[in-house]
Amino acid sequence: MRLSRILKPRFVVSAHCDLPCGVYDPAQARIEAESIKAIDEKYQANTDPEFRTRALIIKEQRAELVKHHLWVLWTDYFKPAHFEKYPNLHTLFNEATKLAGASGAKGSTDAAKADELLQKIDEIAKIFWETKQA
Amino acid sequence: MRLSRILKPRFVVSAHCDLPCGVYDPAQARIEAESIKAIDEKYQANTDPEFRTRALIIKEQRAELVKHHLWVLWTDYFKPAHFEKYPNLHTLFNEATKLAGASGAKGSTDAAKADELLQKIDEIAKIFWETKQA
Amino acid sequence: MRLSRILKPRFVVSAHCDLPCGVYDPAQARIEAESIKAIDEKYQANTDPEFRTRALIIKEQRAELVKHHLWVLWTDYFKPAHFEKYPNLHTLFNEATKLAGASGAKGSTDAAKADELLQKIDEIAKIFWETKQA
Amino acid sequence: MRLSRILKPRFVVSAHCDLPCGVYDPAQARIEAESIKAIDEKYQANTDPEFRTRALIIKEQRAELVKHHLWVLWTDYFKPAHFEKYPNLHTLFNEATKLAGASGAKGSTDAAKADELLQKIDEIAKIFWETKQA
Amino acid sequence: MRLSRILKPRFVVSAHCDLPCGVYDPAQARIEAESIKAIDEKYQANTDPEFRTRALIIKEQRAELVKHHLWVLWTDYFKPAHFEKYPNLHTLFNEATKLAGASGAKGSTDAAKADELLQKIDEIAKIFWETKQA
Amino acid sequence: MRLSRILKPRFVVSAHCDLPCGVYDPAQARIEAESIKAIDEKYQANTDPEFRTRALIIKEQRAELVKHHLWVLWTDYFKPAHFEKYPNLHTLFNEATKLAGASGAKGSTDAAKADELLQKIDEIAKIFWETKQA
Repeated sequence: MRLSRILKPRFVVSAHCDLPCGVYDPAQARIEAESIKAIDEKYQANTDPEFRTRALIIKEQRAELVKHHLWVLWTDYFKPAHFEKYPNLHTLFNEATKLAGASGAKGSTDAAKADELLQKIDEIAKIFWETKQA
Repeated sequence: MRLSRILKPRFVVSAHCDLPCGVYDPAQARIEAESIKAIDEKYQANTDPEFRTRALIIKEQRAELVKHHLWVLWTDYFKPAHFEKYPNLHTLFNEATKLAGASGAKGSTDAAKADELLQKIDEIAKIFWETKQA
Repeated sequence: MRLSRILKPRFVVSAHCDLPCGVYDPAQARIEAESIKAIDEKYQANTDPEFRTRALIIKEQRAELVKHHLWVLWTDYFKPAHFEKYPNLHTLFNEATKLAGASGAKGSTDAAKADELLQKIDEIAKIFWETKQA
Repeated sequence: MRLSRILKPRFVVSAHCDLPCGVYDPAQARIEAESIKAIDEKYQANTDPEFRTRALIIKEQRAELVKHHLWVLWTDYFKPAHFEKYPNLHTLFNEATKLAGASGAKGSTDAAKADELLQKIDEIAKIFWETKQA
Repeated sequence: MRLSRILKPRFVVSAHCDLPCGVYDPAQARIEAESIKAIDEKYQANTDPEFRTRALIIKEQRAELVKHHLWVLWTDYFKPAHFEKYPNLHTLFNEATKLAGASGAKGSTDAAKADELLQKIDEIAKIFWETKQA
Repeated sequence: MRLSRILKPRFVVSAHCDLPCGVYDPAQARIEAESIKAIDEKYQANTDPEFRTRALIIKEQRAELVKHHLWVLWTDYFKPAHFEKYPNLHTLFNEATKLAGASGAKGSTDAAKADELLQKIDEIAKIFWETKQA
């Protein structure tokens, strides 16, 4: 994957805007979720109160970004036809964004909770890339 | 690349935070630059004044994000040893961020200018992945 | 309504946060949508190019806030039980947020489009208050 | 009040923008202040350090929004004639925004302090609605 | 002044935060107002529609910052004793922030309007430095 | 300096925008750095956990602003000719922004660390004003 990055960076298209520009990628949400997991691991390994407070401040921001990137995909990329073809897509997004919030990554410092979020994002990513190939 | 995404989403790690969480990826800047290029193409293809104004509003935001993601890599990821090994790295980042600003992607609606930015980001990405493999 | 405001402002509870604080209200989204409608009306009544550009800049921001406030309700307030009881709730939110985006309030300066958004928000508000009374 | 909301959501107009769109409502500030009070109550009832840190992070944001919404009303809605008719209006706004800051809601986790802020906002709301009816 | 900057940068203290950190300076608002004036001058000298749209987008942001910096001084720095000593201080701030909004710098591209804002900020700055020396 | 402020506020020009408006000043970064130092001093003098958490939240924001203002100077103000004339300028900015981040002001509550940042900003300011006089 890293190799393909170096060889074909030209095919990495992922950003979003509401023009729309038509550029979307679940990687944006996953990236922030990976950050949350890394923060959780560092939090558990470091009991310094200042470090831990900073970790919670930053994790709150990354988790908000996860929610935002997922909401953008759900509202702006996916169309009615997609929701018909994937009946559980609404629920997947609702569960994924809940997993990034108070009952998930925001409210927990357990890397296992971040993994649940990552897995949910991967389920969405799988559907996303299927629809792109369609 | 898209295939590897589907097969190995687990290896897409890219976000950033200043804890630091240690998660970085030039893809974040590239994603926004791809969006700028797409906006430029839609701008040139659509003369509706409302559409064009919205395109400029959104392009301004995406370009600011390109600058931010590149600045973060330059300050937070790259260390003195990297700058010694890659003497042109400072200049590359300075040129790339300038290409995202008034003299580049912000000040132009020409997709060719966005391509210059994308190529500069790819030069940085090549060095980034070399240092990650080191 | 305005009267009840003066007499019982103590009962106006609506903000949101992701602690969670438990305070939610569809009025936050509606407020921004009303602003969009007012902007559209002023836009149509004023052909000054500077005024129109400012109107589009501000409308873009208000529409983004509508999307944000609706996403927060969809993810943070509504629970699985609600989605079971109101099978069309997911679709209502998806349509409402789409109506605030490029295919709706962001991409149009027609007050009729803002009215469609307001009506969709009212459908959501009706369900919201039913669940609060339950 | 909640009933009137359900029956007449059409009359809930409150957002703001600086076009101006002419849509204002003290409810926006009150909503955030209600959130602060709820956060204070949850903070006092929960001694978990992670929860408490998150509560302080979020309260800081809500309090900033209270200040912003009040500043907007003071500068953008109220006109010289209003300040002449209500000689204490400047002081009311200055005290209310101070009550949302370091010497008030930001610097305290006591719900009683949030109540002081809410009462001050209600004094402003009373004047606001009088001027709207004039 | 520029000389004193070079010779005594150590004495330039001006930022703000709501801890409070006790660091305030009207220069922050003036800086943004100077930017607005420069934007107005460039706007009048350049009829390119893309440039003009970008100028309006950026001016909107700088003007919002002027309002914010002034609101912070009015609420967080100035105390009741100051308002007693300077009876016109409330009005000065209200007029200055209005001059940064729709009826002033935001709604105009005339550098003369930006000058009115700058002069009002200077009146506030004069009082500010008097209180600092008191 | 404070005196010259009162007497010649007309010469305080410092804001930035990416039009470009041509208005820059290292004071913006220094102001935020002074705020960080003041926060560190108050943090060390106050062991109240709520106060300390708020101090860390606010310091994180001020430090981010220091990085932003420095990045803007580095990318938008300084030109290739400047980097040729001042070979250490890239390194100065890289070190200064690192000093505002996790390895510096963000990751520490020691005022001595804030002083290191302030001194680095002063080195940049000295060069900045030399280039303005050139």
